[in-house]
Amino acid sequence: MKIAGQPHKTLEFDNATSTLNIIDQTLLPFQVKWHPVKHLNDACEAISVMRVRGAPAIGAVAAYGMVLAAKQNSDWQFLQQAAEALKATRPTAVNLAWAVDRMLLVLQDVDTAGRFVVARQEAASICDEDIAACSAIGDYGCELIEQVAQKKTNQTINILTHCNAGWLATVDWGTALAPIYKAQAKGIDIHVWVDETRPRKQGALLTAFELKEQGVPCTLICDNSGGHLMQQGQVDLCIVGSDRTTANGDVCNKIGTYLKALAAKDNNVPFYVALPTSTIDWQLSDGFDIPIEERSQQEVLEIVGLNRSKEICSVQIAPDGVSAANPAFDITPAHLVSALITEKGVFQPTLQSLAILNKC
Amino acid sequence: MKIAGQPHKTLEFDNATSTLNIIDQTLLPFQVKWHPVKHLNDACEAISVMRVRGAPAIGAVAAYGMVLAAKQNSDWQFLQQAAEALKATRPTAVNLAWAVDRMLLVLQDVDTAGRFVVARQEAASICDEDIAACSAIGDYGCELIEQVAQKKTNQTINILTHCNAGWLATVDWGTALAPIYKAQAKGIDIHVWVDETRPRKQGALLTAFELKEQGVPCTLICDNSGGHLMQQGQVDLCIVGSDRTTANGDVCNKIGTYLKALAAKDNNVPFYVALPTSTIDWQLSDGFDIPIEERSQQEVLEIVGLNRSKEICSVQIAPDGVSAANPAFDITPAHLVSALITEKGVFQPTLQSLAILNKC
Repeated sequence: MKIAGQPHKTLEFDNATSTLNIIDQTLLPFQVKWHPVKHLNDACEAISVMRVRGAPAIGAVAAYGMVLAAKQNSDWQFLQQAAEALKATRPTAVNLAWAVDRMLLVLQDVDTAGRFVVARQEAASICDEDIAACSAIGDYGCELIEQVAQKKTNQTINILTHCNAGWLATVDWGTALAPIYKAQAKGIDIHVWVDETRPRKQGALLTAFELKEQGVPCTLICDNSGGHLMQQGQVDLCIVGSDRTTANGDVCNKIGTYLKALAAKDNNVPFYVALPTSTIDWQLSDGFDIPIEERSQQEVLEIVGLNRSKEICSVQIAPDGVSAANPAFDITPAHLVSALITEKGVFQPTLQSLAILNKC
Repeated sequence: MKIAGQPHKTLEFDNATSTLNIIDQTLLPFQVKWHPVKHLNDACEAISVMRVRGAPAIGAVAAYGMVLAAKQNSDWQFLQQAAEALKATRPTAVNLAWAVDRMLLVLQDVDTAGRFVVARQEAASICDEDIAACSAIGDYGCELIEQVAQKKTNQTINILTHCNAGWLATVDWGTALAPIYKAQAKGIDIHVWVDETRPRKQGALLTAFELKEQGVPCTLICDNSGGHLMQQGQVDLCIVGSDRTTANGDVCNKIGTYLKALAAKDNNVPFYVALPTSTIDWQLSDGFDIPIEERSQQEVLEIVGLNRSKEICSVQIAPDGVSAANPAFDITPAHLVSALITEKGVFQPTLQSLAILNKC
């Protein structure tokens, strides 16, 4: 997708210097800066502090974290330790563990000397597959948008999204936003309600940014507003991403997703979740078994933005001495989800339906 | 209630100088500053820019706005114009119109020369009655908390609230928080989850402040988190205020209330609304007929807080050129409300039940 008219992916591996360059998402939208990831520890840091975020993008960076580890030391024991270190950076998104385990699986049969090259090939494959998966999600999701457009001739289709599940959350295209980009390309008149998504404000900082750069009309709203807009008939459908979806169709996604799913159900608004199948945790069949990351209370108590001097800074928004809780994700039970949009098609969020998907 | 250990009300009328002094809530919690309201226009400005907010407090300031108008010019035509100007400051809360109309009703039978003194007496009565009503709401609401405490022996009672419906939203005591203060006084172990309440952050700025000053344990959360906490069994009951409640029990309150009511229903958490009967609009029997104020998009696009130099400032939180929508209230349908806590007792949110209340 594009920034200032130029096509980009969220990460690029430079073979000459063995450096993974990622867009530093802690500075967006105010600065577009490429951040070099040269060692395993850099990869862990980038994921922990959310220079990169979004389940598929985290998976891709974790894969390259294994590449950088193999460059440093390709002994099996070191690679296993590297895998554990990467997996420990964030507990909720399953793509992280999925990508790291896939790297280990490939590397275990390669002799020490060959591991770096094989790792690099595998990480590149993970990225290429992610792009293809997101593009396919876009095509399947676009069909759902077209169905709404056919019933609402010559009117704007209003889509609500939460957090950022756009191209910045993946390698390219995005999950929840891919169908929107595909629909835009087909000339469908779309407007997106962008949930701010406190505490980290991925909606305000990232989704609004990437939609604007792609020329998709959008309006920023507080997380509190979506229910009211649905009551007023201002939302035709919701599309969100997922950090982990269990085998029964329960969806773990950014905190607040559950509240929007409840409002969608109450107002007969379709609520779609777009995700590559790498986000499905086949080991769990109950969303409430997913570990929910509790992040720093500073993310709630302080807000990052641009001051009048156009410097990135943070402001305190609560009295001294008040503490905060900061659960980063919540669970939307499957019965609130209209359908899951995957690279293999659109599936109902049930054990039976997902078992069929698993065999595709 | 108290600030820094000293008892205060949100407003005090100084008879010697005919000045209404209000706590400037745009500066809380970072500065406690009394703002002088000397003329009708000052009162209109204070309500518009939210130096005072909260339905009962707005009503009280509007009443004193009529006092100041009568001081300026006690001609009937001027007083009618003053009433219209005050009513036009904010469209949603009904206490504003209720207080202004009550002042007009009293003043119409008084000759011009006597109007200022009568107005001052009536405004004082409105304030005294508000304090008594909030105290009674506290007593009735406290009984509901005690019922929960009896079932949950020796455990903390977790109460979630949205926005600020504490003493800062009234003359004293508060509506939603009055039961909490009364329960605290009875030694019940209470902890409050404070919704941040974007965009104006009344939870972070005001509710956290007043609970802290009163020594009530509380934790600030993002508006997105309440549903997750309810799913986890971390919320025993919700209590919120109201800006206008219709004769059938539909509740208009700060944007986002509806989402919490949906989550409460989904998790069998009681959802109470605390309000003086002056907040009930007997002319409407459908909440969706209430006009919803649309406020400036700057409130969404910029966030006010304290910078590292301890100066109050605002930071931009979205890319240049992105627009925002800012509906200030939403409607919680009566069927999501467990009960209405009023100064006349606890009532079911139905036409029949409220008709009985209206006759009390």
